[in-house]
Amino acid sequence: MQVEAGPLLRNINYPSDLRKLKENQLEEVCKELRQYIIDIVSVNGGHFGASLGVVELTVALHYVFNTPYDQLIFDVGHQAYGHKILTGRRDVFHTNRIYGGISGFPKRSESEYDTFGVGHSSTSISAALGMAVASQYKGETDRQHIAVIGDGAMTAGLAFEALNHAGVENSNLLVVLNDNCMSIDPNVGALKEYLTDITTSQSYNQFKKDVWKILGPISKFGPNARDIVKKVEKAIKGSILKKSNFFEALQFRYFGPIDGHNVEHMARVMEDLKHIPGPKLLHCVTVKGKGYALAEQDQTKWHAPGLFDKITGEIKKSVPATPQPPKYQDVFGHTIVELAEQNPKIMGITPAMPSGCSLNIMMKAMPNRAFDVGIAEQHAVTFSAGLATQGMIPFCNIYSSFMQRAYDQVIHDVAIQNLNVVFCLDRAGIAGADGQTHHGAYDLAYMRCIPNMTVSAPMNEEELRNLMFTAQQDNMGPFVIRYPRGNGVMADWKRPLQPIEVGKGRKICDGDEVAILTIGTIGNEAVKAINQLSSEGVNPAHYDLRFVKPLDEELLHEVFKKFKKVITVEDGCVVGGMGSAVVEFMADNGYMAEVKRLGIPDRIVEHGEQQELYAECHYDSKAIASTVKSMVEGSTAKLLAI
Amino acid sequence: MQVEAGPLLRNINYPSDLRKLKENQLEEVCKELRQYIIDIVSVNGGHFGASLGVVELTVALHYVFNTPYDQLIFDVGHQAYGHKILTGRRDVFHTNRIYGGISGFPKRSESEYDTFGVGHSSTSISAALGMAVASQYKGETDRQHIAVIGDGAMTAGLAFEALNHAGVENSNLLVVLNDNCMSIDPNVGALKEYLTDITTSQSYNQFKKDVWKILGPISKFGPNARDIVKKVEKAIKGSILKKSNFFEALQFRYFGPIDGHNVEHMARVMEDLKHIPGPKLLHCVTVKGKGYALAEQDQTKWHAPGLFDKITGEIKKSVPATPQPPKYQDVFGHTIVELAEQNPKIMGITPAMPSGCSLNIMMKAMPNRAFDVGIAEQHAVTFSAGLATQGMIPFCNIYSSFMQRAYDQVIHDVAIQNLNVVFCLDRAGIAGADGQTHHGAYDLAYMRCIPNMTVSAPMNEEELRNLMFTAQQDNMGPFVIRYPRGNGVMADWKRPLQPIEVGKGRKICDGDEVAILTIGTIGNEAVKAINQLSSEGVNPAHYDLRFVKPLDEELLHEVFKKFKKVITVEDGCVVGGMGSAVVEFMADNGYMAEVKRLGIPDRIVEHGEQQELYAECHYDSKAIASTVKSMVEGSTAKLLAI
Repeated sequence: MQVEAGPLLRNINYPSDLRKLKENQLEEVCKELRQYIIDIVSVNGGHFGASLGVVELTVALHYVFNTPYDQLIFDVGHQAYGHKILTGRRDVFHTNRIYGGISGFPKRSESEYDTFGVGHSSTSISAALGMAVASQYKGETDRQHIAVIGDGAMTAGLAFEALNHAGVENSNLLVVLNDNCMSIDPNVGALKEYLTDITTSQSYNQFKKDVWKILGPISKFGPNARDIVKKVEKAIKGSILKKSNFFEALQFRYFGPIDGHNVEHMARVMEDLKHIPGPKLLHCVTVKGKGYALAEQDQTKWHAPGLFDKITGEIKKSVPATPQPPKYQDVFGHTIVELAEQNPKIMGITPAMPSGCSLNIMMKAMPNRAFDVGIAEQHAVTFSAGLATQGMIPFCNIYSSFMQRAYDQVIHDVAIQNLNVVFCLDRAGIAGADGQTHHGAYDLAYMRCIPNMTVSAPMNEEELRNLMFTAQQDNMGPFVIRYPRGNGVMADWKRPLQPIEVGKGRKICDGDEVAILTIGTIGNEAVKAINQLSSEGVNPAHYDLRFVKPLDEELLHEVFKKFKKVITVEDGCVVGGMGSAVVEFMADNGYMAEVKRLGIPDRIVEHGEQQELYAECHYDSKAIASTVKSMVEGSTAKLLAI
Repeated sequence: MQVEAGPLLRNINYPSDLRKLKENQLEEVCKELRQYIIDIVSVNGGHFGASLGVVELTVALHYVFNTPYDQLIFDVGHQAYGHKILTGRRDVFHTNRIYGGISGFPKRSESEYDTFGVGHSSTSISAALGMAVASQYKGETDRQHIAVIGDGAMTAGLAFEALNHAGVENSNLLVVLNDNCMSIDPNVGALKEYLTDITTSQSYNQFKKDVWKILGPISKFGPNARDIVKKVEKAIKGSILKKSNFFEALQFRYFGPIDGHNVEHMARVMEDLKHIPGPKLLHCVTVKGKGYALAEQDQTKWHAPGLFDKITGEIKKSVPATPQPPKYQDVFGHTIVELAEQNPKIMGITPAMPSGCSLNIMMKAMPNRAFDVGIAEQHAVTFSAGLATQGMIPFCNIYSSFMQRAYDQVIHDVAIQNLNVVFCLDRAGIAGADGQTHHGAYDLAYMRCIPNMTVSAPMNEEELRNLMFTAQQDNMGPFVIRYPRGNGVMADWKRPLQPIEVGKGRKICDGDEVAILTIGTIGNEAVKAINQLSSEGVNPAHYDLRFVKPLDEELLHEVFKKFKKVITVEDGCVVGGMGSAVVEFMADNGYMAEVKRLGIPDRIVEHGEQQELYAECHYDSKAIASTVKSMVEGSTAKLLAI
């Protein structure tokens, strides 16, 4: 749904229009921009709090810097809605995150103002440094490169690696630290506490206190005492605090903290910073959700609230008449608590996704056994490995696409040592509206090549629970359970826990001529396809593999002995995935069959609803049914040709 | 070769024996331990400088802490030779890194004193924190957990993520920072400069200067001036420097810097630290190669010098009569310079491996176009992506197994945006003596599932050069070239550069009945096998695929039309690798053939010479020949049975 922009905003098509305004008009622009975001997101959905928090920052940046020649990179990109609206996309902004519409994140192919595609956190400083070094090499000495990064994203190792390098490159790099004390959930860790400390100046005050304590009663210095006090305080403030700074230690020039909601002041500071060469960091303090009271109050809830009434703040939820299936993440969240109550070895770990993966349920129920380690996937895995060496059984819950960031830790720290770490990969397969950066497309392929791994995927809630139950038994070694975003299929999901034999699939239904092999929840699309087909007299068999590793060889022998036509279906990449494992088995065992592998194709898939993308990628129930029919008809055609 | 240990050392079988000695005997133990390392490494080879540098540190740690109950983790593990010798492995130490012998790195299966398997850098703090948190949970309040990490390893993001988490956990964690200013090459980056700064106290001095400057002439403070001077200096030293510390900002208690070669002093400091709860960091300054003059002077050369005469310091090299093939890494190093001289877009990037991958040649020849970014694989890739957005063509050289650490950056920052980054993966396939953590086993599998990627491997030096030439052309998108550790096969390797058509393999020789498909340098084992076989009248065909992605479909159609028996050979994991790609092709195109896939099996492969491990894994020339024969005989047997 399109909405009307305010009088200033409607004339800003590009930042060049913004730059024509007077400095004292910027506050009004911010007001209109904030209103526009509220108007659109309330009726179209999307990320909310982050963009509201950086309205002033965004306006100041585009006002002061000569974008797109000066290069601006938003880290993660949840906060880039204002940027999109100011850079030629106001009139298509209502298509945000919708199939065929604009992306919810900055994307190079969408605009020259989107200098770097983002989605995962903490890439901005590295990318900006690369751009800055290239500019330097080309002699573009006037060109500016700005990375806007949150305090949450700053905790990821990648950001630190970039700071460490940038500190010794003398290029035009400005890091704007958007400090709002939040990731999606409240930010955690020592750096966050340090930033709070600088901001509230406790360290500065503590500092002064310590110095005075050591100096002793100032009265003894006689008539000059007052003068000394002033001078020492100035020394502390002007010199000591500067040098004591974390970022200064990494050879950045540190500026701030400043109020990230005072647009005119920020613009003036940024103007000054343009003329200071070398790496520099501007610390801006902002409030996530700024300007929308409810969003300021409950920042996690309003990170991406869905549709809501902008006046009453009521979040719109369709209320179903009958009990609905739960989200898979909640099945995980409740089941881990249930298991941990029985098994004292179980611990829960999440890198900054407690509400996204529902580990917050365990964090509340047993706070000494559940850890949010910050945006730090690598550490989450190696920390889990450390726990496992002591006989713990950590459940390390990481979104499938984020797990890519800890791949070496999975191999090097867990698999090689065959440690009992359970990896619960949420958001596996097509992730939906978050799009290309967030699809968990590759996990089956990149996990199954690792020795010692068990790689599984449940078809429904009951299976998820039983796989979790199975994985927490002793001596299981590394154990992957991957499941998708969204809701399951069982209203009555909380059934008694039962172990599953590792590497055992199951037959869902018998059939003839064609066998459909599925892994994970996409198996339910096969069930739908089979229901459709039976009315047409076509009856394929259906097997749920459950495990991509180890493969159920007994079941596969049964399949290949009986069927000469096999369809594999997975909500994951067809290159190297489950279908690939099946054809490896076929080749290794000398079976000859016609195999069609359905799944995520070998190209980047954009955003949209999951069902829209299953259809686009040709593995929804309709596609499965049509594939079955074409295989059946293929043989009919051959028969007729004889 | 076994050697004699000194009189104290020969009676130390375990740390408990060490702990029986008096503090004033420790220096003598260090002397003997250092001598023992020199004696053994000079005749058996291995890593040298790192272990010499931490002799005192190792002795102090095992003397003070109650290992193995107290848990000691060495980061990377190059420096753990002294630890191995003191913990039950003195008499087998001469088998270090040899096939069937002990590992060159700490390894859990080898000793209870090896609390965590290492090899890749920067894992120790995460792992130690996991152990510490588990101890806390179990109520083992007296148990200590110590991570020993170099200043080089401290620059990797994983270490920072761990510090950020550890700072807010109140567990018994001691991080010992072994500051020797070195990785394998001299350490780089802002943190290194910061550490040097603390150590040489320049910041402290600068600090004092600044404060006094602001205070103005002290004479004006009259008779109390001297007193003020003293007090302020004390305040600065005691309070300000502490608070200004990088690690204190992350809520670690910082101690040091102290002399890492004064064993008695270190032991006393560590004894004190035992009684201080919470996260703490002890900064020890050491010299890599300490006690062996040549190793102190040229630390990179003596990181792992091979065999040498311990008296003269002469490094033993067999001098061949005729020119020998070069190392693949040197082909890379010389060729990138040759290409960059022609193509101004080319840049070179290495994460802390300039001498290991030979980018040091380019760093010397064109310092503004070649970057050592420190131990920071993730940043290396995203920095390269940033460069590529500006039209540069970065060659990002990362060892295959270390590339696992930047997997998300490859997908998220390079492949999704289809940027022209060339990934040169050195040490691909079996890496040899470094063993399980260093084999580049998985790259073909984990790279080929990524859209937009080109994945290639040269069969020899000329092909490596031509693939590099091909990759640096415009609009190639992400391009992987993987090649192994060690020497090539062409004495006359520097041939004119020629482009290769992307996705085009080549026929090496015609043949009948069986086709051997290879990728990469392991193709030379197939050549040897075919030479052997021809004397027995067996003549398989041989195709070099060159590209795992895109596959040469034309060539594969030719193969599967002509041959019903196919062998695939790769120096990489058989699960999901090149052979898997070939059977996917076969299934997709409805071919029926008997396929045997040779390569690294689905288990962890230990250390040894490359040829020893090719044989163990059954894909050396002998294994290829026997596989061909068994397939041929299989059909003869079938013929006879008719």
